[in-house]
Amino acid sequence: MEAAVLISEVGPRDGLQSIATTMPTAAKLAWLDALHATGLREIEVASFVPARLLPQMADAAEVVRHAARKPGWTVLALVPNLRGAEAAIAAGAHKLTIPVSASHAHSLANVRKTPDAMVAEVRAMVELRNSQAPGVGIEAGVSTAFGCTIQGRVDEDEVIRLAVALAEAGVDDVGLSDTTGMAHPAQVRRLFERLRSAIGDKAGAAHLHNTRGLGLANCLAAWEAGVRTFDSSQGGLGGCPYAPGASGNVVTEDLVFMFEAMGVATGVDLEALVAARSTLHAGLPGEPLYGLVPEAGLPLGFVYADGRAPRHPVDATHGAH
Amino acid sequence: MEAAVLISEVGPRDGLQSIATTMPTAAKLAWLDALHATGLREIEVASFVPARLLPQMADAAEVVRHAARKPGWTVLALVPNLRGAEAAIAAGAHKLTIPVSASHAHSLANVRKTPDAMVAEVRAMVELRNSQAPGVGIEAGVSTAFGCTIQGRVDEDEVIRLAVALAEAGVDDVGLSDTTGMAHPAQVRRLFERLRSAIGDKAGAAHLHNTRGLGLANCLAAWEAGVRTFDSSQGGLGGCPYAPGASGNVVTEDLVFMFEAMGVATGVDLEALVAARSTLHAGLPGEPLYGLVPEAGLPLGFVYADGRAPRHPVDATHGAH
Repeated sequence: MEAAVLISEVGPRDGLQSIATTMPTAAKLAWLDALHATGLREIEVASFVPARLLPQMADAAEVVRHAARKPGWTVLALVPNLRGAEAAIAAGAHKLTIPVSASHAHSLANVRKTPDAMVAEVRAMVELRNSQAPGVGIEAGVSTAFGCTIQGRVDEDEVIRLAVALAEAGVDDVGLSDTTGMAHPAQVRRLFERLRSAIGDKAGAAHLHNTRGLGLANCLAAWEAGVRTFDSSQGGLGGCPYAPGASGNVVTEDLVFMFEAMGVATGVDLEALVAARSTLHAGLPGEPLYGLVPEAGLPLGFVYADGRAPRHPVDATHGAH
Repeated sequence: MEAAVLISEVGPRDGLQSIATTMPTAAKLAWLDALHATGLREIEVASFVPARLLPQMADAAEVVRHAARKPGWTVLALVPNLRGAEAAIAAGAHKLTIPVSASHAHSLANVRKTPDAMVAEVRAMVELRNSQAPGVGIEAGVSTAFGCTIQGRVDEDEVIRLAVALAEAGVDDVGLSDTTGMAHPAQVRRLFERLRSAIGDKAGAAHLHNTRGLGLANCLAAWEAGVRTFDSSQGGLGGCPYAPGASGNVVTEDLVFMFEAMGVATGVDLEALVAARSTLHAGLPGEPLYGLVPEAGLPLGFVYADGRAPRHPVDATHGAH
């Protein structure tokens, strides 16, 4: 059965760069191995940014090289600029992901560039790719697309204008990110529908957060609006800027459960995914992991979208950390 | 602006009867007062069951009397049988709610009656109401409607057959309950659409749980299927049969936030609702409260469905327990 949605695991990049602890390289590689065994077909493994700014990502090249040697999945690296793109391509990343903030305030605070200056940077990265590595994909992710903690509301017309500019700059797809956990389902549906109207098949991934508990409801709304690629993070890794107990990223385990229960195939083995938490936990002892499916287990009678039954009942003992 | 959905707060009944601690009566009354101040228009405050079975509900009559004196909201009491219905009516409940399990296994384990025997009991309660208290409403809630922890899958035809039988028995409305936290959005949508086709305007509330993190996604699916009454519990009170950290009931705070953010008016003041957590916490120190909106606060730029701005920014300090 062909997978109906693509789950893009971003924990090794988004999760690990958001926490204070630096995960040792060997532990990252072990976690990637465990994630690879789940059947995930896309994974974002590192950011190519100066190590003095993000020491958690100092081993980005080694991590990308390791992940890219494994068959069957697309390895993404986040790159904020041309220098990062060169390094990611050299390391063997299959696809580059470039964040571009729709909020001027956030963009200036984050990369000291306006959104339009970032579009110019993206165009330079596309030219680099076209001339030197035509097999490498490029996606742009419009961040703060649903609201900004600095400026508040973000104009939806501006989000769409920026997405069109990015598509015209030559990226393969443009996603929308709820960087700040402010999105609600009606907005998610409306904006992804507008995105598809504006750029057609270049409409890309939904990167949604669970900051206010709406993560899965927002994913459902995006799915209903035609989105078929979803970013999420094992254990909701990355935490929350606000408070302990609040998860930032959508939890991959719960997201995969929702889709599989609905009969929408993800290609991901939930039992292997829950088992991979142990490897993550071993590499980051003390870091809280979120997710309710790992705690509650799969419900009695659960079958995957392809009709398979779980190999053995998943119970609460699997996710007890 | 007229409220577009009815939030039925079930914490004082469902929450309090699910935890080991018995909340002192005075603390219950104080919490009810705080909840009344939020603008809630429906509340389920007690179960009329023998105190030896459920000591947490021994003060049901006093609690109902207190709640029913307050204007502007409908006070519900859960009653499992005719004796409970008599007591609830005598105490002044505005509406009775009767759980009827669609799972034979669950029904026998819980009330030692088959679902059809429960329908007969419901009919007797309707006759009591009709003859002695015609102003009192009656709803039936089909429990284990989405799956059962004893028998696993529950046949959807059987759920609908039971709902029709309950409607024919004379109740005012029939809701569906995900008692076990096994529902997924596609199933929620399908079953509520079938319910409405089968019994029309007698199709009632969605009582959904967050056991596997799908609570709000399931509420969204129910809303899209036309449901306009939602049960939820302040702080997700009631916990989870499986594991600490897992919430049972959908969290009222997060549910109200979702609808208000979407522009769907609830009539509930989120700031007063978050403030009511303190009263609950004071009456039940040590009991964990869930909910991400109280931790993260309202997002910058948030407005209620009626266009009002929050009186002051809600921040993380409000929900720090």
